Amino acid sequence: MAQEDVFKKLVSHCKEYGFVFPSSDIYDGLGAVYDYGQMGVELKNNIKKYWWDSMVLLHENIVGIDSAIFMHPTIWKASGHVDAFNDPLIDNKDSKKRYRADVLVEDQLAKYDEKIDKEVKKAAKRFGDAFDEEQFRATNPRVLANQEKRDALHERFAKALNDNDLTELRQIIVDEEIVCPISGTRNWTEVRQFNLMFSTEMGSTAESAMKVYLRPETAQGIFVNYMNVQKSGRMKIPFGIAQIGKAFRNEIVARQFIFRMREFEQMEMQFFVRPGSELEWFEMWKAQRLKWHENLGLGHENYRFHDHDKLAHYANAATDIEYLMPFGFKEVEGIHSRTDFDLSQHEKFSGKSIKYFDPELNKSYVPYVVETSIGLDRMFLSIMAGSFCEEELENGSRVVLKLPAALAPVKLAVLPLVKKDGLPEKAREIIDDLKFHFNCQYDEKDSIGKRYRRQDAIGTPYCITVDHDSLKDNCVTLRNRDTMEQERVAIADLNNIIADRVSITSLLKKLQ
Amino acid sequence: MAQEDVFKKLVSHCKEYGFVFPSSDIYDGLGAVYDYGQMGVELKNNIKKYWWDSMVLLHENIVGIDSAIFMHPTIWKASGHVDAFNDPLIDNKDSKKRYRADVLVEDQLAKYDEKIDKEVKKAAKRFGDAFDEEQFRATNPRVLANQEKRDALHERFAKALNDNDLTELRQIIVDEEIVCPISGTRNWTEVRQFNLMFSTEMGSTAESAMKVYLRPETAQGIFVNYMNVQKSGRMKIPFGIAQIGKAFRNEIVARQFIFRMREFEQMEMQFFVRPGSELEWFEMWKAQRLKWHENLGLGHENYRFHDHDKLAHYANAATDIEYLMPFGFKEVEGIHSRTDFDLSQHEKFSGKSIKYFDPELNKSYVPYVVETSIGLDRMFLSIMAGSFCEEELENGSRVVLKLPAALAPVKLAVLPLVKKDGLPEKAREIIDDLKFHFNCQYDEKDSIGKRYRRQDAIGTPYCITVDHDSLKDNCVTLRNRDTMEQERVAIADLNNIIADRVSITSLLKKLQ
Repeated sequence: MAQEDVFKKLVSHCKEYGFVFPSSDIYDGLGAVYDYGQMGVELKNNIKKYWWDSMVLLHENIVGIDSAIFMHPTIWKASGHVDAFNDPLIDNKDSKKRYRADVLVEDQLAKYDEKIDKEVKKAAKRFGDAFDEEQFRATNPRVLANQEKRDALHERFAKALNDNDLTELRQIIVDEEIVCPISGTRNWTEVRQFNLMFSTEMGSTAESAMKVYLRPETAQGIFVNYMNVQKSGRMKIPFGIAQIGKAFRNEIVARQFIFRMREFEQMEMQFFVRPGSELEWFEMWKAQRLKWHENLGLGHENYRFHDHDKLAHYANAATDIEYLMPFGFKEVEGIHSRTDFDLSQHEKFSGKSIKYFDPELNKSYVPYVVETSIGLDRMFLSIMAGSFCEEELENGSRVVLKLPAALAPVKLAVLPLVKKDGLPEKAREIIDDLKFHFNCQYDEKDSIGKRYRRQDAIGTPYCITVDHDSLKDNCVTLRNRDTMEQERVAIADLNNIIADRVSITSLLKKLQ
Repeated sequence: MAQEDVFKKLVSHCKEYGFVFPSSDIYDGLGAVYDYGQMGVELKNNIKKYWWDSMVLLHENIVGIDSAIFMHPTIWKASGHVDAFNDPLIDNKDSKKRYRADVLVEDQLAKYDEKIDKEVKKAAKRFGDAFDEEQFRATNPRVLANQEKRDALHERFAKALNDNDLTELRQIIVDEEIVCPISGTRNWTEVRQFNLMFSTEMGSTAESAMKVYLRPETAQGIFVNYMNVQKSGRMKIPFGIAQIGKAFRNEIVARQFIFRMREFEQMEMQFFVRPGSELEWFEMWKAQRLKWHENLGLGHENYRFHDHDKLAHYANAATDIEYLMPFGFKEVEGIHSRTDFDLSQHEKFSGKSIKYFDPELNKSYVPYVVETSIGLDRMFLSIMAGSFCEEELENGSRVVLKLPAALAPVKLAVLPLVKKDGLPEKAREIIDDLKFHFNCQYDEKDSIGKRYRRQDAIGTPYCITVDHDSLKDNCVTLRNRDTMEQERVAIADLNNIIADRVSITSLLKKLQ
């Protein structure tokens, strides 16, 4: 099945089984905003817990905070977001539609690639086994012509972006004869910068309300709390501050389901280190973070690093951890060596000293920062994508979410074989004991097979079937979601057996 | 000590020990916004978990969701917030300061009370033991005069509010000769309504951006997801949907630390029931919610119900659970029978049917709703206030936070008696085993006494001291925060002993 079809199926599965709903669905939705349903919220909370515990519980020198979404507006001046957090936009005068100018050019680049691919595919079909793709690409005139145009455009585009030259960006669109997909015309306005931060007005003093922004990242909430945490927590460098929270960006091109949203959630950890040691820590965190992802068991081959060639103004090293989504390898986490840029800026703009006295070196300095930053919603999507399977069985097929057991929304379904003979009562007795430790579901409706299918579809790792023997031997059948194998176990042992297999604690222990 | 002084001490304790910092502190703060520090975030997360698990784990028929802060703007039209979520504001023309007109009048009412109290205190001092307060209040002319003025003002004020009569509200301010605290003048503007919702612009289409609000309550996120959750989760009435999330109100008078903030967090559960059965469920939830609070062990006498006389337009019964804060009994949770108001409004405004087919009654209806709604930050404050103690000891004094153990940020401090002889290594061995289950702190600095004081100040329920004997007998000293009593326990037993006393699971079991 084509990857686009898999992705479409995944999106509709998310809605059908209560993982992700379009926000304000009964009002026909709100652009690029989504709600997490009854299954989604549990999966999301489990991801948060796995991250938080791995950071805060397992590291003596990492603590958490929870800073507000509203922050003093000068913070975004200091961080550079007021001046430089922009997208270049262009309007088509006929359709009145607005586009990101850089995305129009990127789409144009993709068109050249498509043309080349088409030629290659056509030739491959014609020549069959004898086809030498490398030679064909190196010699075919149509391929070479398109390749040349593509490379020239790419070079010109990269230079325009680098120079932040909006006039040139517009000229590229004109020269490439790019048309508006709606009106089909080339009647374009100038390109202008559009800031991605949402703003609102706070207070209502007669003089004037204060313009505040919805934070576009959680990181600054950590930086401005650095002194308070360091002092009140008596922290010694190196140490880290972790935070989970919402951030907001007024994206023009919000695409691919929950991959790029206007309201999203981040899990960020800023690690404060001695100047000069940051690149060692950067390498350490690169390795630790990849291990954390791989520990979920979704396949080592589905992760890769993507080191940044072009670094942001505040960084001296940066990499992404990418996961193979249905639409290609995409960033789920960034690791950035941010130098002392942010803390120094806040020193400058706030007029307060943000220095650390290092007793071993007997001197004061502004700490350097290595950041690990996860897009929680992307990570959610990567886990759903990596878990979604359609399997052919002997007697039909099934859709199963092979979620890492520790992250599964429901850990355990307890199913009486029949709705009588005291089996429901026995099933509830079991739940009443286990419900304190695991999210359990009780289901007595329909055949056992149908009930298994429902649990497979929401990724429940274990089903317990209570049968007539259970009343005598106090044992139940434990069915494994992935292997569909069943084992007979004593009710008294259930808690320990299941905890061992599905708890976040077990997952954390594997990290050590 | 006066209650105001206790409150001031609590606020400074919150900052000093990393519970709550003023937001954007290095930029001199942001009005009525606060950040949770490294201790605060853990306490807050534990409160959330206690609530979430009590709702979602323990109730087969309650599920969670996590809906976005951004919602379709028509939702706030349907809910009544666009038209009716207002505060009456008035400006002083000289100081240019803006006030809530109703708060100015409330302050005036309080002044009459103060005058009366002053008379009573003066008389009590004069007459000593012979003083009969009741008789004095009933006969003293100055008391009676003030009482009469107060009652008349109260009656007039209540009527103006009830009639939503802004002209009369202004006239009261004029007639009572209320002056601006800044300018001291009575030069007032008209009173006008000011909407409490924050708004921002979403998208950037050439035509026009969409005005969206930051949700002023999480409840509507549940209502608009009702159909999706009911269908995808195959829920049967009665059932509930629970949610924890941020909400925002542009309060004019934001006061009392984190009690009333512009950005705050709610824990809300909407319970959907058959029409006609709502008042029974209302009583059931009243009882259950009070039990949940009292289960924390902060004293039954500190809670009370406050039934609403005047009901909101959507409610047919409502009560608050109040907690005795340093500034009086204050609402921490509301329980409201909201009828079918919200779902019916959304039917009307969205044009979609929001009906439930009840197989037992064999008919369809719009469900009725009983809501339980906690202000998480208020609840946090109530717990801090209820736990904060200054105690005189034989050899000095201590500040101790007697937090419910299951909610304490740090569960366990492991302290080697001395920084040598292998004791630190033994201590770390213990932590390495326990850290997967509890938030632990290691501390080897200063005397044991000082270390105990530090743990008392952040509310750590247990301290473990590793001494020289520990190396031989594999036992440690376990010190209880509240009683300061010590017991000798085997290291091998620590996990079970502590889990039993400090886990949220244990707290949940006491609810049953």
